[in-house]
Amino acid sequence: MKCAEQQTAEGILFTDQYQLSMAQLYFRAGLHERQAQFDHFFRKYPDYGLHQAGYCISAGLEWLLDWMEGAHFRDEDIAYLRSQRGRNGTPMFGEDFLAWLRQHGNFGGISLYAIPEGRVVHPNVPLTVVQGPLAMAQILETALLNQLNYQTLIATKAARIRESSRGGAVLEFGLRRGQERGANAGTRAALIGGADFTSNVGLSHVLGYAPKGTHAHSMVQVYMSLGMSELDAFRAFAEVYPDDCTLLVDTIDTLESGVPNAIRVFEELRRKGHTPVGVRLDSGDLAYLAIQTARMLDSAGFPDTSIVLSNDLDELVIWQILTQIGEEAPRYGVDADRLVNRMVYGVGTRLVTSHGDAALGGVYKLVALHSGNSWAPALKIAESASKTTNPGPKRAWRIYDRRDRATADLVSLADEDPTTAERLTLRHPSDHARYRTLDKNQLAAIEPLLVEVLREGRLVYNLPDIEAIRERRRADVAHLDAGVRRIMNPHIYHVSVTPKLWELKQRLIAEATGD
Amino acid sequence: MKCAEQQTAEGILFTDQYQLSMAQLYFRAGLHERQAQFDHFFRKYPDYGLHQAGYCISAGLEWLLDWMEGAHFRDEDIAYLRSQRGRNGTPMFGEDFLAWLRQHGNFGGISLYAIPEGRVVHPNVPLTVVQGPLAMAQILETALLNQLNYQTLIATKAARIRESSRGGAVLEFGLRRGQERGANAGTRAALIGGADFTSNVGLSHVLGYAPKGTHAHSMVQVYMSLGMSELDAFRAFAEVYPDDCTLLVDTIDTLESGVPNAIRVFEELRRKGHTPVGVRLDSGDLAYLAIQTARMLDSAGFPDTSIVLSNDLDELVIWQILTQIGEEAPRYGVDADRLVNRMVYGVGTRLVTSHGDAALGGVYKLVALHSGNSWAPALKIAESASKTTNPGPKRAWRIYDRRDRATADLVSLADEDPTTAERLTLRHPSDHARYRTLDKNQLAAIEPLLVEVLREGRLVYNLPDIEAIRERRRADVAHLDAGVRRIMNPHIYHVSVTPKLWELKQRLIAEATGD
Repeated sequence: MKCAEQQTAEGILFTDQYQLSMAQLYFRAGLHERQAQFDHFFRKYPDYGLHQAGYCISAGLEWLLDWMEGAHFRDEDIAYLRSQRGRNGTPMFGEDFLAWLRQHGNFGGISLYAIPEGRVVHPNVPLTVVQGPLAMAQILETALLNQLNYQTLIATKAARIRESSRGGAVLEFGLRRGQERGANAGTRAALIGGADFTSNVGLSHVLGYAPKGTHAHSMVQVYMSLGMSELDAFRAFAEVYPDDCTLLVDTIDTLESGVPNAIRVFEELRRKGHTPVGVRLDSGDLAYLAIQTARMLDSAGFPDTSIVLSNDLDELVIWQILTQIGEEAPRYGVDADRLVNRMVYGVGTRLVTSHGDAALGGVYKLVALHSGNSWAPALKIAESASKTTNPGPKRAWRIYDRRDRATADLVSLADEDPTTAERLTLRHPSDHARYRTLDKNQLAAIEPLLVEVLREGRLVYNLPDIEAIRERRRADVAHLDAGVRRIMNPHIYHVSVTPKLWELKQRLIAEATGD
Repeated sequence: MKCAEQQTAEGILFTDQYQLSMAQLYFRAGLHERQAQFDHFFRKYPDYGLHQAGYCISAGLEWLLDWMEGAHFRDEDIAYLRSQRGRNGTPMFGEDFLAWLRQHGNFGGISLYAIPEGRVVHPNVPLTVVQGPLAMAQILETALLNQLNYQTLIATKAARIRESSRGGAVLEFGLRRGQERGANAGTRAALIGGADFTSNVGLSHVLGYAPKGTHAHSMVQVYMSLGMSELDAFRAFAEVYPDDCTLLVDTIDTLESGVPNAIRVFEELRRKGHTPVGVRLDSGDLAYLAIQTARMLDSAGFPDTSIVLSNDLDELVIWQILTQIGEEAPRYGVDADRLVNRMVYGVGTRLVTSHGDAALGGVYKLVALHSGNSWAPALKIAESASKTTNPGPKRAWRIYDRRDRATADLVSLADEDPTTAERLTLRHPSDHARYRTLDKNQLAAIEPLLVEVLREGRLVYNLPDIEAIRERRRADVAHLDAGVRRIMNPHIYHVSVTPKLWELKQRLIAEATGD
């Protein structure tokens, strides 16, 4: 895309046509400025096929706010809408509606509550609550879902990879396999969720991290095609980067050529007073090769040199590699724990695409419309009870048990405050037979989850920097039970509703279905 | 991201750190301006798990060229690189290298050949050939793979969905589930590969299409929460869009409420001289509901009204729906073929994420380095023979048999011209025992696939508009055997190398491994 086209395609028109059709309908009905409330939430954790997430990590809010700040209907956007024709050749959009859009078509009237970035989040709890004029709150839907769905998906995947890597550094390498410039959002979300660094230069700059990387096979090929050798290539690299020397050792043959050549170069570096950093293994049986590489590095006197693994890694592959190392390393006289502690993981494709489940099904549902002096709750009935939305303006709470572990999230109506109750009843959101009761003395804390972010378009929230977001993620994950953190078949975390919300929902279902 | 940050993260620094590390190494070695040649190709068709692609559709070139045109090292990019520190605290990049980057760090020296967008493409055939100064050709890798991998992946998925939809219109609806603004690239690729229209307003504008859409459940909810009904909502919509009226009928109950209400509104429209467009089904058993909806529409005298299906559709789901319709429709007195002909498919998440295989593993490999007066071929040996690259500057050809069907792609060395040979030997690229021989009289045509696009940074190719690209795709797909087009277990299309290329590769393998 050319630059001007990009401004068009990434501005306010980054939306679905039906949002505009509905906005005009609301305009005709005099409802366009009626205050409405939409909840954004997801219904299911990512399911990667063989394994499933037990929690998600919220991400994407700051970039959504940046987009909202600038987005508005420019003259050229209006001109385009004016040119749209229906089937009978008449304009799709009327001049009165376009004039309103030109003047009011921005997000200055939107108020927004959100669960902050980096927080552990669960299904059916509102992550974002949008309140504002119906037409603009509706037009916002597409961009909001686009930004929050993807970053939350990737932060979640990164948290899982971090979990399986047992403390080894995780490097995000996915730029070449992401969806065009959206890959940058993947990098950011990966850093929020669990990656330590990224190879992405531009985004490292923007976020204030040192970008990471070694070299490619092509560097060795260059030297070989000039009649030189892998060793010559390694020497050249070590000469330019004597204190930052990580060598890719699988261009020819990892154990026969790459590692021995790397060790020769590392010895030369050591003689000159430098400390080599590591080797990278990018193909073959990574567990076996890591063990043999460790053995060779150990006997050459490089017991602390890193071993970087890459090549279609994800949480399962890393888990398998570490399991195999645990079983096989002793057989070769290699201490498995010491080996695990020196390993680093370069994770690309499978992180940036959330391998196994490439989209988070976050949705944006109308929950209330202002009518007279109060909110009229709105409901979306679905074929299955579990997909029927929770109506009305709401709040979300996290309940910590006496061990200070998060034991449940609770969704209440907006006028409820569970922190003041002596006893809490947690109802299953769709199964009337399931509930539990907690006495206040069984709990360490009840924490409100949603914070006020925008008040009629004005930022009233102090956006944390990325380090603070990461710290938030670390703290939240530490408050989870081990069973919820488990990579495979995790415990199902409880998400409950209050009896009052439950009753409202049942009443509205009965009204809508005529029962 | 703020606007200035976006310029940083989407400009020349949209690359991996190791590209810059290698570029500086080449600079130190005096190799940075040495002419190099890289091939971009993919090794395997997308494998969606239960089903696999038998061909891909090339896409992404134009947007890559747009990016290359503007990308260069700005003062602020240089300042950032200057600030990077290695482990010992000294600058990662030297001032001489940074000065060179500031002056020469753009793609003005790059020549590029490519298989045009919209063409059917196959594994191990170079889709893009980049020739230019080693340092800049290396830095280009990340952005090139990012743009071409993703769009080719999605154009391929769209072609499959088109194949399974048997002529029904395909609407792309994936904006909310793509990777941030990269979703726009998905929309473009979907239109290239097989979608007829998209809901994406901005990109429809940029590409000159009418965006498509109906309305959301929220519109019905709005009316219900104000004490009105689904019928009131439908009437309001029909009043605003009397000639463009497609109604979403599953907010309450598709067959009990939605379709009967839609029919009432359609009858009202008809009385006023308007033609209703369609209904949309977004949940439940879509095949069963489509049959019942058709039946109800037919008996109300709306036999041509469209039935739009949506809800996690992909090529397999559509195939299943059409199969079920073929079997069940007659039982309800509905003509299956007529029903299929009135159906439209809204495809979102599973198209924009290429459900089942969310990344195309396209790679970018050094194949030659200029040395003295000629090209020294470069080889990348891999653990498996099939992953070892084809060395040297090359050309690519498509061979059509007497039925004018594409029967094989042939990769030759650059100085070979198979069109002049009386007889062709097509060798399997890695199995020495497999080859076949074709006489010229068995062939309808031998077509060169790569066109010259950039000559030292200058565009020498007439970029086709999107309609021409789509026409190219239609023509290419029509030249494929039915077995190759099959959605499941397609025939493996032959990709061969010439004997001369085969021999060069074998010689280089022997040299590299010391055999």
